Amino acid sequence: MSTPSSLQNLIDALRVLPGVGPKSASRMAYHLLQRDQPGANDLAHALMHALGTLRHCRDCNTFTEAEVCEICADERRTREQLCVVEMPTDLLMVEQTLAYHGLYFVLMGRLSPLDGIGTQDIAFARLLERASDGVVQEVILSTNFTVEGEATAHYLAEMLRARGLQVSRIARGLPVGGELEHVDPGTLAQALVERRKL
Amino acid sequence: MSTPSSLQNLIDALRVLPGVGPKSASRMAYHLLQRDQPGANDLAHALMHALGTLRHCRDCNTFTEAEVCEICADERRTREQLCVVEMPTDLLMVEQTLAYHGLYFVLMGRLSPLDGIGTQDIAFARLLERASDGVVQEVILSTNFTVEGEATAHYLAEMLRARGLQVSRIARGLPVGGELEHVDPGTLAQALVERRKL
Ligand SMILES: [Zn+2]
Ligand SMILES: [Zn+2]
Repeated sequence: MSTPSSLQNLIDALRVLPGVGPKSASRMAYHLLQRDQPGANDLAHALMHALGTLRHCRDCNTFTEAEVCEICADERRTREQLCVVEMPTDLLMVEQTLAYHGLYFVLMGRLSPLDGIGTQDIAFARLLERASDGVVQEVILSTNFTVEGEATAHYLAEMLRARGLQVSRIARGLPVGGELEHVDPGTLAQALVERRKL
Repeated sequence: MSTPSSLQNLIDALRVLPGVGPKSASRMAYHLLQRDQPGANDLAHALMHALGTLRHCRDCNTFTEAEVCEICADERRTREQLCVVEMPTDLLMVEQTLAYHGLYFVLMGRLSPLDGIGTQDIAFARLLERASDGVVQEVILSTNFTVEGEATAHYLAEMLRARGLQVSRIARGLPVGGELEHVDPGTLAQALVERRKL
């Protein structure tokens, strides 16, 4: 007695999902087959549809169904500023601030040697080309303040400055409404270093 | 600016997976599209194939690609004993012991009022019918020793005994090689209660 091959294949296929080991893949497969076959069917079709329709924006590299995404196509945006983020979700976060009116470049990742993600695996070459179009004046590095995000920003800053571009990094500091008593010492130290003249 | 619809649909569709909230669905979608499109394609096809080929064994209710599974079709198995388990993985665990030669019935779940899983959602009616075939002499309840598994066993024991069937429950006790010093008090207490005469 063994697991039927189509069931075993499904369990194996579910392991492509990040963070899903053999046990949860098995649990997911049984759940879908036993409790949610319509959901499993929807998932299969959503995967095929996304694979068939999504591509990277020619200009900013985010996912889009068109050749150029809505933001890059918007003529009201300032074309002199380029905000570099790790993922499309980060782009949405910046958009939600309503405080930025320039363009974006989405790396679709970060340098992460431990995960085997090096400079070849991220769209670095395309960013350098994009930032060197003669229109972009300032590149604002908005990668995360994680070890990987910081390393990515450091690497990009060097490459971009070498091309004569002005490079900036979003600020670290206390959150809006934040109290000194409740902030971690590292953030507070950085807020002191990055203090602004009034 | 919003997430392209085919990407949003994929994120929504991934939430059918147990334990996957909006954040991990989003992370999974980006991972598949950015880092493993062949894996995403395999997953879509494995889902469609499993939905198209798997069904429940006519006799034991486990997943199979045939009308009757290998075990139920095996004429060397003892047809007087019926071992009731929650899931197909539990059946495989019992098979691995090589200590059981009877047949099975797979509930495909357990009573779990908190998750909204009642007697209608588990194959109870089919089990009662199956166990009443006139050949089965003993039903061995091998559901888990969790609160839900115990409640399921308790409920089934009453229903099966009411039909004049002999019902047993797998034993709790120390693991093989287990030391009293390292076992939890509840298990040790149960091992004392379920002691065997030598
Ligand atoms: Zn774009
Ligand atoms: Zn069977």
